Amino acid sequence: MAASYPKKKCGVLGATGSVGQRFILLLADHPFLELQAVGASERSADKKYKDAVRWKQSAPMSEKLSNLVLRECKAELFTDCDLVFSGLNSDIAGETGKGLQPGVSPSRSEDGMLTFKTEMAFIKAEIPVFSNAKNYRKDPIVPLVVPTVNPSHMDLIPHQRKHFGLKKGFLVCNSNCAVIGVVIPFAALQAKFGPVEEVEVFTEQAISGAGYPGVPSLDIVDNVIPFISGEEDKMENEAQKILGSLNADATAFNEQAGLRIGATCTRVGVTDGHMAFVSLRFKNRPAPKAEEVVQAMREYQSEAQKLGAPSAPEFAIKVFDEPDRPQPRLDRDISKGYTVSVGRVRDGAEGGYFDIRFAALSHNTVIGAAGSSILNAEVAVIKGYI
Amino acid sequence: MAASYPKKKCGVLGATGSVGQRFILLLADHPFLELQAVGASERSADKKYKDAVRWKQSAPMSEKLSNLVLRECKAELFTDCDLVFSGLNSDIAGETGKGLQPGVSPSRSEDGMLTFKTEMAFIKAEIPVFSNAKNYRKDPIVPLVVPTVNPSHMDLIPHQRKHFGLKKGFLVCNSNCAVIGVVIPFAALQAKFGPVEEVEVFTEQAISGAGYPGVPSLDIVDNVIPFISGEEDKMENEAQKILGSLNADATAFNEQAGLRIGATCTRVGVTDGHMAFVSLRFKNRPAPKAEEVVQAMREYQSEAQKLGAPSAPEFAIKVFDEPDRPQPRLDRDISKGYTVSVGRVRDGAEGGYFDIRFAALSHNTVIGAAGSSILNAEVAVIKGYI
Amino acid sequence: MAASYPKKKCGVLGATGSVGQRFILLLADHPFLELQAVGASERSADKKYKDAVRWKQSAPMSEKLSNLVLRECKAELFTDCDLVFSGLNSDIAGETGKGLQPGVSPSRSEDGMLTFKTEMAFIKAEIPVFSNAKNYRKDPIVPLVVPTVNPSHMDLIPHQRKHFGLKKGFLVCNSNCAVIGVVIPFAALQAKFGPVEEVEVFTEQAISGAGYPGVPSLDIVDNVIPFISGEEDKMENEAQKILGSLNADATAFNEQAGLRIGATCTRVGVTDGHMAFVSLRFKNRPAPKAEEVVQAMREYQSEAQKLGAPSAPEFAIKVFDEPDRPQPRLDRDISKGYTVSVGRVRDGAEGGYFDIRFAALSHNTVIGAAGSSILNAEVAVIKGYI
Amino acid sequence: MAASYPKKKCGVLGATGSVGQRFILLLADHPFLELQAVGASERSADKKYKDAVRWKQSAPMSEKLSNLVLRECKAELFTDCDLVFSGLNSDIAGETGKGLQPGVSPSRSEDGMLTFKTEMAFIKAEIPVFSNAKNYRKDPIVPLVVPTVNPSHMDLIPHQRKHFGLKKGFLVCNSNCAVIGVVIPFAALQAKFGPVEEVEVFTEQAISGAGYPGVPSLDIVDNVIPFISGEEDKMENEAQKILGSLNADATAFNEQAGLRIGATCTRVGVTDGHMAFVSLRFKNRPAPKAEEVVQAMREYQSEAQKLGAPSAPEFAIKVFDEPDRPQPRLDRDISKGYTVSVGRVRDGAEGGYFDIRFAALSHNTVIGAAGSSILNAEVAVIKGYI
Repeated sequence: MAASYPKKKCGVLGATGSVGQRFILLLADHPFLELQAVGASERSADKKYKDAVRWKQSAPMSEKLSNLVLRECKAELFTDCDLVFSGLNSDIAGETGKGLQPGVSPSRSEDGMLTFKTEMAFIKAEIPVFSNAKNYRKDPIVPLVVPTVNPSHMDLIPHQRKHFGLKKGFLVCNSNCAVIGVVIPFAALQAKFGPVEEVEVFTEQAISGAGYPGVPSLDIVDNVIPFISGEEDKMENEAQKILGSLNADATAFNEQAGLRIGATCTRVGVTDGHMAFVSLRFKNRPAPKAEEVVQAMREYQSEAQKLGAPSAPEFAIKVFDEPDRPQPRLDRDISKGYTVSVGRVRDGAEGGYFDIRFAALSHNTVIGAAGSSILNAEVAVIKGYI
Repeated sequence: MAASYPKKKCGVLGATGSVGQRFILLLADHPFLELQAVGASERSADKKYKDAVRWKQSAPMSEKLSNLVLRECKAELFTDCDLVFSGLNSDIAGETGKGLQPGVSPSRSEDGMLTFKTEMAFIKAEIPVFSNAKNYRKDPIVPLVVPTVNPSHMDLIPHQRKHFGLKKGFLVCNSNCAVIGVVIPFAALQAKFGPVEEVEVFTEQAISGAGYPGVPSLDIVDNVIPFISGEEDKMENEAQKILGSLNADATAFNEQAGLRIGATCTRVGVTDGHMAFVSLRFKNRPAPKAEEVVQAMREYQSEAQKLGAPSAPEFAIKVFDEPDRPQPRLDRDISKGYTVSVGRVRDGAEGGYFDIRFAALSHNTVIGAAGSSILNAEVAVIKGYI
Repeated sequence: MAASYPKKKCGVLGATGSVGQRFILLLADHPFLELQAVGASERSADKKYKDAVRWKQSAPMSEKLSNLVLRECKAELFTDCDLVFSGLNSDIAGETGKGLQPGVSPSRSEDGMLTFKTEMAFIKAEIPVFSNAKNYRKDPIVPLVVPTVNPSHMDLIPHQRKHFGLKKGFLVCNSNCAVIGVVIPFAALQAKFGPVEEVEVFTEQAISGAGYPGVPSLDIVDNVIPFISGEEDKMENEAQKILGSLNADATAFNEQAGLRIGATCTRVGVTDGHMAFVSLRFKNRPAPKAEEVVQAMREYQSEAQKLGAPSAPEFAIKVFDEPDRPQPRLDRDISKGYTVSVGRVRDGAEGGYFDIRFAALSHNTVIGAAGSSILNAEVAVIKGYI
Repeated sequence: MAASYPKKKCGVLGATGSVGQRFILLLADHPFLELQAVGASERSADKKYKDAVRWKQSAPMSEKLSNLVLRECKAELFTDCDLVFSGLNSDIAGETGKGLQPGVSPSRSEDGMLTFKTEMAFIKAEIPVFSNAKNYRKDPIVPLVVPTVNPSHMDLIPHQRKHFGLKKGFLVCNSNCAVIGVVIPFAALQAKFGPVEEVEVFTEQAISGAGYPGVPSLDIVDNVIPFISGEEDKMENEAQKILGSLNADATAFNEQAGLRIGATCTRVGVTDGHMAFVSLRFKNRPAPKAEEVVQAMREYQSEAQKLGAPSAPEFAIKVFDEPDRPQPRLDRDISKGYTVSVGRVRDGAEGGYFDIRFAALSHNTVIGAAGSSILNAEVAVIKGYI
C-alpha cells in the first residue's frame, strides 16, 4: 500500500545536530521518503557529512550518507528537494512567534531569528518544511501536529498557502517531546469521556532531549536535575492547540478551552525515553473508572493509522498491566519508537480531586521529535499536499 | 550543652544490614550515645563484625567495630545496653500492626513476625527500642516520630509503659523515608497557614532505599522504575499521624483529619537522597503565596532544635532560590543529612486547583531512616525518658 | 542461499534466564532455526512462558512465545526438537570438567552437576546440544567454538559421537564472553604474522554478563568493581584451545602452546558490550607495525562467513580509525552484535616489551554468548552435522 | 604541632573553575592556610564569588566565601597573599614548556599562554605559586611534587629563585591525576626492591577529571570512552621526574632512567576516583613476591608524613586484602582523599614477563590535583620556604 506512493526527495536542515541525525536515521530504508540533501551551517558547508558530524547514533551511518556533501541552509541550494525536515536550533529563551507576518520577530535570540528566516525562505521557495523548532508551534496559521493525534490539522495548509501566496510551500511543526505523553492518551480519553479539565503532570526526561553536548555528565551521574529551562511552559501551552479542532472552513484552530495543565519537568540519567506521570480530572461527572480508561486507550486508532502511513504504529498506545511498566530501557523502542506506552492506570483516591492517574513513556527523539515530522510528512503525501 | 548528658550504651539490632550499618556510622563520635553491642541473625552470631558484614559505606569501619562480636538478637544478651536501635527487616508485604496486644500479628510475613517478637521482647526486658521497621508505625500506642516535626509525640511514652506494665522499656518508630519530604515542610506551613487539604506527591527515590543487594543494576542503569511496592500506601497513610496531635492526657494521637495524599513513587539511579515533588492545596482561603511559603519554611524551628539535641540541624529546612536545586548529589549531605532541602517553590496556576508546588530532597538513610531514630533517641534522653 | 536449508526445530534450556531470553530473541525471524520448545526448572514447568519469565529484553516477546508452555528440562520431553540451546546455569565456583566419562563430576556445585547431567542426557537421547555453560569448555572431546574463529573444530563431532556411541547427538560449547575480544583479532593476526607469545589484557565488562538479578545497583552506580570471580581464569585458559588446531584425524585438539595471557577483569556500569584492552607481543621478529595489523584485521574472513551462515557478519572485525572508538553504546550492535569492533591500534613503545596495543568491543550476549551458539548451530547445519 | 605554624594568607587563581572550587573546599578549616583572595577572569572580576560561580561541590559554600569579591588574576592585586594556588586552565593540546626563559612559549594555546604569563607574573612579584596546570611540570627548574613521594624536590627552590633573581617567589607543580596511582606505590616498592623497569598501566578515570561541563552525559551513560586526549602521554612521561632524584647541589633533577611506561587511559561513569591497573617488572632478579610487595606498601612512610604536615594521611597507601577492593565509591574518601588505596596485589604468571600486578585508586581531585598542592604548600611552610 505505502509502496504505491511516488518517491519524494527530502532535505534535512541542521543535519549534523542531534535532531538532524535522527531525521537521517529514520529516513534510511523509508519506502518513499528519500534522503537527497543535507544542510548545515556555513562553517560545515562543502564538507563531506562524515567529516563534519560527530555521529552519536547507535546505528552506523551508511556509506552513501558519509560522502554526501553538506550544503549551506539556503533555499536556492535545495530546489532538488520535494520537502525538507528542519532540525535547526531555536532552543534559546526568547519571545515566541506572533504570526508569520514579515518583520515580526518570532524570537529575540540570534539562533531563533536565523531559524525563522531560514524556514520562511524555504516555504517561500515553494519547499514544504516539517520543523522540529519551537518558533512557530503556537502560530495561528501553522499546524502543530502530533501524527497519532491531530493530522487533520494539516487541512489548514491551503489557507496557509493562500496567506503567503504560495502554491506548494507550507510549514508544519511537530510538538515538544514532553507533551507527547499527555496528548496521545488524552486524544483517546477525550474522544470517549469528554474533556479533561485539569492535569498535574510530572516528567522524568532523557538526556538526549537536551541534544549534544547537552547535559554535562557531572550533573546527571548519581543525580537528577529538578528543572528543565522552558520545558514546563511548553507542556502547559502546546496541548490545548494540539487537542483543539480546526474551524469549519479550515482557516483557524480552536484551542481546547478550559484545559489547565500544571507541569514539573525533571532530567534523569536515561539516554532515551521520557516518562510522564499524569493525574487528571475530567469535566463530566461521573468520571470513568480506571478499567474504562484502559479500554479506551487500547481501542484508540488515530487517523495516521487509518490512512496507512507506513511509519504509523499498529497501536498508538500500548497499555501495560504489570505495575512496574513502562520502563524506558525496556519499552521505548516498541513499534520503533512510534508507540506511546502507558501503565499504572489507577483510580484517584476516594474523595480526592483527581479521577485517574497513569504513567506514559514516549521515545523523545522518535515520536517526540524527528519521528513525528517524518510521520507528518507521510500523512501530507498521502493527503496529496506534497 | 549536649556534653552535659551522661553516656548511654546502645545496641544495634540487624547490625549487618544496610540500615544497621547506617546506625553504626551515625553513632561514631556521638557525644553521648555509645555503641556497645551489635546484633544479627543466629547464623552470624559469635562472628566478628568484620567477618559477617558486607560493609558498603563510604567511610571505613573502625578497628573497634571490626572486632565487635555479633550477638543473637535476644533481649537477655543486651542487658548491658541502655537502649537499642532496630534495623530489623520487616519490609515484606503483609498486614500492618493492629496494636501491641500479645497474640495479634503485626504482619503476615515471617520476617515481620520475627521483628514483632524481637522488638516486643526487648521492651518487655525494659530496654527502649528505636525502630526503623514499619510494623508498629500506625499502632495507636506507638509514637511515630520525625524528630524535626513531632518529638512531642514521645510524651505518650508513660502511657505506653503503663499499658505494658513497664518501667523503662518503650518503643518509638521513625517514619518511612519518602514521607519525610512532605511532613517536614508541612509542619512549617501548617503552623502558619492552617491545614493542608490535598496533596499530589511524586517521588524519585534512591537505590539505597531498597537495601542491599536491593535493586538489580540491570533495572536501573539507563532506566527508571515507575513503581515501588508498598511505598505509595505508606506515603498516603503515615503523614496524618505524624502531623496529628497528642490528646490532652497524652494517651492517644489525633490524626490530622481531612488530609488527602495521592502518591506516585519511582526509583531512579541515584545512590542516596529521595526527591519529592509536591503540589498542595490549603484548606483556608485565600491561600498563601509562594514567597510567604518560602519565608515560613526558612523561619521554621522544630522542637528537636530548641531542645539542643546534638544531631539536630541548625535549620530543619533549607530553601534554595536557584531554580535547579536541590539536587541529590549536591545537597543531600547538608547538615550531615539531617536537613531537608526545598526548592522550586511556585504558586499554582491561575484558576488551578493547587495553591503551591515545591520540590524537597531528604537523605533517605539519615533523616529518612537511621538518623531519625538517632535524633529521636537524643530527644528521649534530653526529655528524661532514658 | 540460506533459504535453501531445511527448517530445524530448536529447544531452549534455561529459557527463562537471561541467556535463555537472548537465545529466544535471536531465534525470532531466523531463516531456518525455529523455536519449538522452552525448558525451565521443575518449579516453572507447565506454566505459560509469559507467566514464568521476568522478561528483561528491550524487544517485546511475541504472542506465540508468550503462550508457549514451559517443559521440564528432560530429554524425553524434547524429542520433537532437532537440537537444543543450553542456557543452563553453571556459573558457580567449582572444579571444571575432567572429561565426559560417566561418574566424573565436572563441577562440585549443585547447579554445575545438574547442568552436567542434563546436557549429557540430551546428547545421549540423540539431541545435539549447543551450550553456553562453562562445564565442558575445556573437555578434550568437546569443541569450544567461536564461530568467526574456529568452526573447523566441529569436525571432531564424528569422533565425539563414536566415543559415546551416538548417531546424532553431540555437544558443542561457545566460549566465555570476555575472551572473544582477544581470540577473534588474534585469529586474524596469527594467520598472517605467526603466533602471539604474550598478552596482557584488561577488560571493562557489562552488567548483563552477570545475568539477572546479577550485579546490585549499589555496587555499580558511581562505581566500578575491580574483580569478577572466576573470569580471569577463563580468559587465561580458553584462548589456547580456541586458537589451537584439530589434529590430522580429527580426534583431538592441539592447544596453542606458548601463548601466555595475563588478565585483569573489571565490571563497569554498562548494560551490554565488553571492552578488552590488549597489549601483545609476537613470537617472530621483526614484529608487524600497527598499520599492518589494521590491514590484517580488515581483510580477515572467517570460515563462518565463507560458508554463508546467515547470522555471520559481513566483517568479523570492524576497525575504527577514530581514536575514541569503539564505544559500547555506539558500536555494540554493529552487524546485530556478531562483529567485534577494534580501535586504538598502536605500536608498542620504543624498546618496550609489547609490539601492539588495541581495544576491542564485543557484544557479550550475542557473539559473546547466545549468538555464538546460534551461529555455531548454523555452521553445523550447513556442514551436515544436523 | 601543626598549630604552631603561623597563619599564611592564600589566594586561589581560577577560583570559579572545578579545580579552583576544590582548592577552596580544602582550605576550609585549614589549621594555618587561610583563604584570603579569589581570582578569576576579567569577565568575573568585581562580582561576588556566589554570583560568578557554578558551585558543583557536595559541601555548601560558606557565607564568607559567598561574598568574597573576585579579583582579576593580576599579581599586583594579590600582594596581601603569602602564596597562591593556581587552578588556571592550560589543558589544551600544545607544545609543552621548554624552560622558564622569558619569551619561550610553554604552550601554543591561548589558555596555556595566559597561564604561563600569569604564573610567571606572580612569582616575579615574589608570590609563591603552587600550580595544578601542566605547563611547567617537565621544566628542568620546576619541582614536580607528589607530596607523599618527593617533597624533597622542593629543595631546588633556592636554585630556582637564584635563576630568576627572586627572594620569596617560586613555582611548584603538582602532577597529573592519573600518574598518582603509579608513583606512590612505586615510591614504596623501589625504596625496597630497586628500580622498576617496565610498566603496563590501564586506567578507569572519573568524569570530574575533565572539569565542568567536561564529559557530555550522552558519552558516558551506559558507556565508557576508550581514550582521553593527552592523558597517556602525561602518564608515560611525568613518573620519571617524580621518581627521580635531586642532584648533589640541588640544582637539577635526575630523572629515573630506564623506566618504560605504556599507558591506556579510559573514562568511566564515576564522579570521583581514578582506578589504575598496573603490571610491572622489576629490574633486579629474583623479583619480590606479592606478599613482600604488600608489606612494603604497608610500611611505607613518606617525608610529608614524617614532617607532620597536617593534611598528610596516616598511611600514604592502604592495602586491601579483599579481592574486590578498592572501589571508587567506597574507598576514594579514605583519609579525606589523601591516601592511595591498593588491592588485587598478585604475582605475575609463571614464565610471564611481569612480576607483579595491582590495582590502585586515588581521589583525582584531592591527592590527584588540588590536594597535592595544598599538601605541597604545607611542606613548603614547614621547611621554611614561605
